[in-house]
Amino acid sequence: DRKSDHLRVGPYVDFPVSVVLPAGGSGERTGLQTPKQFCPFLGRPLISYTIESFERVSWIQTIMVVVAKENIGLMMDIIQQFQHKKVRVVPGGSTRHRSICNGVVALGEEGRPAADKPKVVIIHDAVRPFVDEDFLYKIAVAAKEQGAAGAIRPLVSTVIATTSEGYLDHSLERAKYRASEMPQGFTYDVIYQAYQRCTESDFEFGTECLHLALQYCGTNAKLIDGPPTLWKVTYKRDLAAAESIIKETLSQSACLITGGLEVGVTLGKFLQKAFGSLDMELNVTPDLMGDNVRYLLKDWNFILVSVSPSCLSEVEAILTALQAENRALLNPAVIIWMHLSGTDEPSTSGRPAESAALISLASTAKLRNILLYGIRLHQPEDTEQWERSASRVADIASALIRDRNPALVGQLLQA
Amino acid sequence: DRKSDHLRVGPYVDFPVSVVLPAGGSGERTGLQTPKQFCPFLGRPLISYTIESFERVSWIQTIMVVVAKENIGLMMDIIQQFQHKKVRVVPGGSTRHRSICNGVVALGEEGRPAADKPKVVIIHDAVRPFVDEDFLYKIAVAAKEQGAAGAIRPLVSTVIATTSEGYLDHSLERAKYRASEMPQGFTYDVIYQAYQRCTESDFEFGTECLHLALQYCGTNAKLIDGPPTLWKVTYKRDLAAAESIIKETLSQSACLITGGLEVGVTLGKFLQKAFGSLDMELNVTPDLMGDNVRYLLKDWNFILVSVSPSCLSEVEAILTALQAENRALLNPAVIIWMHLSGTDEPSTSGRPAESAALISLASTAKLRNILLYGIRLHQPEDTEQWERSASRVADIASALIRDRNPALVGQLLQA
Ligand SMILES: [Mg+2]
Ligand SMILES: [Mg+2]
Repeated sequence: DRKSDHLRVGPYVDFPVSVVLPAGGSGERTGLQTPKQFCPFLGRPLISYTIESFERVSWIQTIMVVVAKENIGLMMDIIQQFQHKKVRVVPGGSTRHRSICNGVVALGEEGRPAADKPKVVIIHDAVRPFVDEDFLYKIAVAAKEQGAAGAIRPLVSTVIATTSEGYLDHSLERAKYRASEMPQGFTYDVIYQAYQRCTESDFEFGTECLHLALQYCGTNAKLIDGPPTLWKVTYKRDLAAAESIIKETLSQSACLITGGLEVGVTLGKFLQKAFGSLDMELNVTPDLMGDNVRYLLKDWNFILVSVSPSCLSEVEAILTALQAENRALLNPAVIIWMHLSGTDEPSTSGRPAESAALISLASTAKLRNILLYGIRLHQPEDTEQWERSASRVADIASALIRDRNPALVGQLLQA
Repeated sequence: DRKSDHLRVGPYVDFPVSVVLPAGGSGERTGLQTPKQFCPFLGRPLISYTIESFERVSWIQTIMVVVAKENIGLMMDIIQQFQHKKVRVVPGGSTRHRSICNGVVALGEEGRPAADKPKVVIIHDAVRPFVDEDFLYKIAVAAKEQGAAGAIRPLVSTVIATTSEGYLDHSLERAKYRASEMPQGFTYDVIYQAYQRCTESDFEFGTECLHLALQYCGTNAKLIDGPPTLWKVTYKRDLAAAESIIKETLSQSACLITGGLEVGVTLGKFLQKAFGSLDMELNVTPDLMGDNVRYLLKDWNFILVSVSPSCLSEVEAILTALQAENRALLNPAVIIWMHLSGTDEPSTSGRPAESAALISLASTAKLRNILLYGIRLHQPEDTEQWERSASRVADIASALIRDRNPALVGQLLQA
């Protein structure tokens, strides 16, 4: 999340850096009608995740998004809905290079004081959402020192040259080559001059900015090994891969709110162990007041212990608190109402009022991007029962948290 | 599924074809301890999916799996558990080429009549599970005609040559090159001779079988554009992508069993429309007897209409029928017990006995690879109510079917 990210920024970049984000692709390779950069993931378009990756880096100034004219309105809506602050939008050209060039020129024409003109321009793809600050730092510094820098990855497949008739001509020795990926960084002067000097044919058919910097400015880019998460969302299968990474990021930990109940503390003790064996961290807190507000600002998942069968007022309170902090603006939050029924109540009895109230509250919460579920547990009586119950609760709760399935909100599950 | 696949085979191959499947990789790029080919997807190792893709092609004879010595026991267990019939296992060598060579030699030494010696050998990767019969046909026929044939894909990234100091040397013109993928096909004589003639250095450092065929047999392989689903499961993100493809394949359709109830037929009518808008087909049938057994043999998902609150005997009957057909051997089947409560019963009331019986039966079913869930619906009274209810049921049922989440079995959800 943003606030905690701001606390753990790495080395600071002391020169102005801005970003050009071409987002003009048609997405034909996914087989979908919507261009990939606008495909929703958990209700948010992919490009907003990419923007978020840059926006949370404190030393990045402007993110110049270049979109096809017909998508400018859509892009402005995305910026408004997700409250992006560093973004400017310019219309794209007819090719990738023309679009990037428009973005570079627009960064130089911002009419700001000269000191703010970017020293380094980072060029990225809208469909590579998972770039992190450490890697951006390496690219920015290398670009400033060398004039140009780019991410590379090992080749996954052998590359071969084909004859015009469709036969093997020769294969390349894989170890000598690399895949050129994004982000790439350039000093403003290098990328600006490269586009000033390149030909119409480069604009029309070229794909590689590093090549233009070499050919027209004599700049040999520094190549930096990037992480696999830099890959480009290209095919339909990549949509599932991206969604899985997003969901995993949101499911690292959950916060159990005991309400100060003794039985809540006991549950917390057993549940921490059960979550641990599922690779999830569980923070246990009596409430979200005072210092404990840090959980509200950090966690995406809340489990609220209750012993009162028909009272959802604690859930309403946390819904209000999350909304006051605008916490679910970028990602859906999860609340699990954890009802521990007393030893004298039959554990599997559903009360119509309880169930209907949860369904109704979940509908309201969903409109605020908060996914509300319920789990009912018959209060265990000894250690062995507690361990088995905690294991079932952890299985169900982690499944709800990891899946974040909007079709199941309001359901009261039996642990 | 297998039975329906056998009905729709494409053109038949009238010469003997066998497969070598090297499965020796260490899987280090996924960041997981288990090699990728043995990673479970819905409880089944990836390599079993790959084997299934070949096994269901009627004109493929032997699948020679080459595994590291330490994994032979594991591989034999997989073959037994999933009842693979065409597989033989040989120990791998210290490199990919040595492993493939072992497989090729073993195919020639099977001691069968000479007529059965494969004319064509298809070489594939254990971690490319989604190869289909049509493409295998193209490769086999081209291999027989040309001596060698291989799958290619367009390059996703520009390929660049680097200097020894880590700078850009030059970039390749993307249009002139292709990624070499699998499967590849060879006449037995070409691949056998290529391995007889190649050097220790080829065995040690080479990666490309097509290159050996060219260099040592003068055979220019025919290159055939393959579908994107041929990609190699390489990184952690690819595991999520593969799982998503497997789940999607199992979620194309569901079968609603009305039990001959009038209310079931009504539900079916509204539900077909609601499923349609979620891109799922719904087959409606009174039972699974006689001709209707085809649904039992074809569908992976069953929705069973019931108006009796505490009677799960229909569920038990379908569990028995699925088990008799060994239907859930390769993939988990889903059963949703759809309970329509009468207009005089409170819709949200759960009966303890009902809920406990479902949980208990779901535990038993899970051991047979069948995922049992429940949905409760208060019987609608007019068309408008039916439409809204059917839409909620379709949302919940399709979520259960698509997720196939074992942590949620036995839950009785409220539509
Ligand atoms: Mg960061
Ligand atoms: Mg087939």
